[in-house]
Amino acid sequence: MIDNPRSPRVRAVAKLAKRDGRRETGRFLLEGPQAVGEALAFRAGLLAEVYATKAAIERHADLARAAEQAHVEIAAVTEKVLEAMADTVTPQGVVAVAEQFPSTLEEVVALRPRLVAVLEEIRDPGNAGTILRAADAAGADAVVFSGQTVDPYHPKVVRATTGSLFHVPHVVGVTLAETAEALRAAGLQVLAADVSGDDLLEARPDLAKPTAWVFGNEARGLDAERLALADRALRLPIYGQAESLNLATAASVCLYESAFAQRA
Amino acid sequence: MIDNPRSPRVRAVAKLAKRDGRRETGRFLLEGPQAVGEALAFRAGLLAEVYATKAAIERHADLARAAEQAHVEIAAVTEKVLEAMADTVTPQGVVAVAEQFPSTLEEVVALRPRLVAVLEEIRDPGNAGTILRAADAAGADAVVFSGQTVDPYHPKVVRATTGSLFHVPHVVGVTLAETAEALRAAGLQVLAADVSGDDLLEARPDLAKPTAWVFGNEARGLDAERLALADRALRLPIYGQAESLNLATAASVCLYESAFAQRA
Repeated sequence: MIDNPRSPRVRAVAKLAKRDGRRETGRFLLEGPQAVGEALAFRAGLLAEVYATKAAIERHADLARAAEQAHVEIAAVTEKVLEAMADTVTPQGVVAVAEQFPSTLEEVVALRPRLVAVLEEIRDPGNAGTILRAADAAGADAVVFSGQTVDPYHPKVVRATTGSLFHVPHVVGVTLAETAEALRAAGLQVLAADVSGDDLLEARPDLAKPTAWVFGNEARGLDAERLALADRALRLPIYGQAESLNLATAASVCLYESAFAQRA
Repeated sequence: MIDNPRSPRVRAVAKLAKRDGRRETGRFLLEGPQAVGEALAFRAGLLAEVYATKAAIERHADLARAAEQAHVEIAAVTEKVLEAMADTVTPQGVVAVAEQFPSTLEEVVALRPRLVAVLEEIRDPGNAGTILRAADAAGADAVVFSGQTVDPYHPKVVRATTGSLFHVPHVVGVTLAETAEALRAAGLQVLAADVSGDDLLEARPDLAKPTAWVFGNEARGLDAERLALADRALRLPIYGQAESLNLATAASVCLYESAFAQRA
């Protein structure tokens, strides 16, 4: 039983909530039974350490079984230790440390993708995670975190993806220019979601083609230089009096429109 | 200049962040220049009191002008008073008190609605507000807060609507049964968004009809009794490995699918 919340091991886990801690180790923090369960089911090989309170181990028998089958050991910790490790207030008794597992653009291209979401300069972790989750639901083949977009391994992004981080390949540390070039060369049209664009409803027939959607910063959108990297800009029409849509909401509608057009 | 954060007037404003305070007065709290600006532009007659710091009045000259044109007086307050009034950490120097303005189902029916969102037992204020905002964007004619759904005048709902609360009529204090009955009698089909339903993509042609969408609780969805109140249940297909979609995200896709079908 690990019971000292100030031990170096506990501090090392807690440090993964910070960007420096993640960069230095190449690892990240998973919180809660749902996230740890998805990691066990989809990428058990990435799990370096799993920690749980005795109560959580008893409550989540399925998790303990999945860990055993994947030959992953769960270390028992006290409530205080778990609290000290976690970034969230309520990690429900379970946290884990996993290796980061970014894909390269080349790996994504090799998948012959038909739908990709590109997040350019998105700053809010909740937005980024929610879009990745929607991209997963819409059957996207990859999500690219380009430019200064929030780190996909930020605890709040991980939480907002509710496990989808383990389902969809993600690319980090690339520019929008190289992303657009690589995906265009792979036969995808690059569509910028932007208020300056053509009406998405009128462009509907064109959405059946393999597509990379580019979503820009929450406040500023995409500037002229970035828009020029896309083949075309499309806007989600606003039929009421709302000034704009929530970014994650708008991105979800765009991704599903493509998913539907590719299957209709 | 109002400068005593403990005065009865300041306490009366702060009390509107609580359900009891809103019920007793029939009023609610607006925070930030955007929300107050939308109220001035769309429903100035509802504004009972507007408070702002000197700095905010100078920074938002447009707001001061709009208030003057609407014959609404802005009372100057100190930073400390504004903080004491507000529910948010950063109301950006402006709050207001407005009269609640729910519509009845009869009033909604009189609008001859073609698209209505019904929020049944939705508990998260951010979800409810985001769906109302998306409903506004999709051109919905009304939003119904049925059953034990969070109060539309909860400060976090108001914030998440980013002004859309003033654009779309909203109904409160009704059951799902009477809502479904009234809207069906008005010629709308009642569609439940539910994982047990038919594939939305296959049902696409039917979405051109006037439609009321029912969205259920975040965790439990809609139970059998509630599903029976709808004409049909539809599910947003999940093409990837995500277990589910964020409620606000799924609702936005459903509402836009209807908006598009009605215009295509």
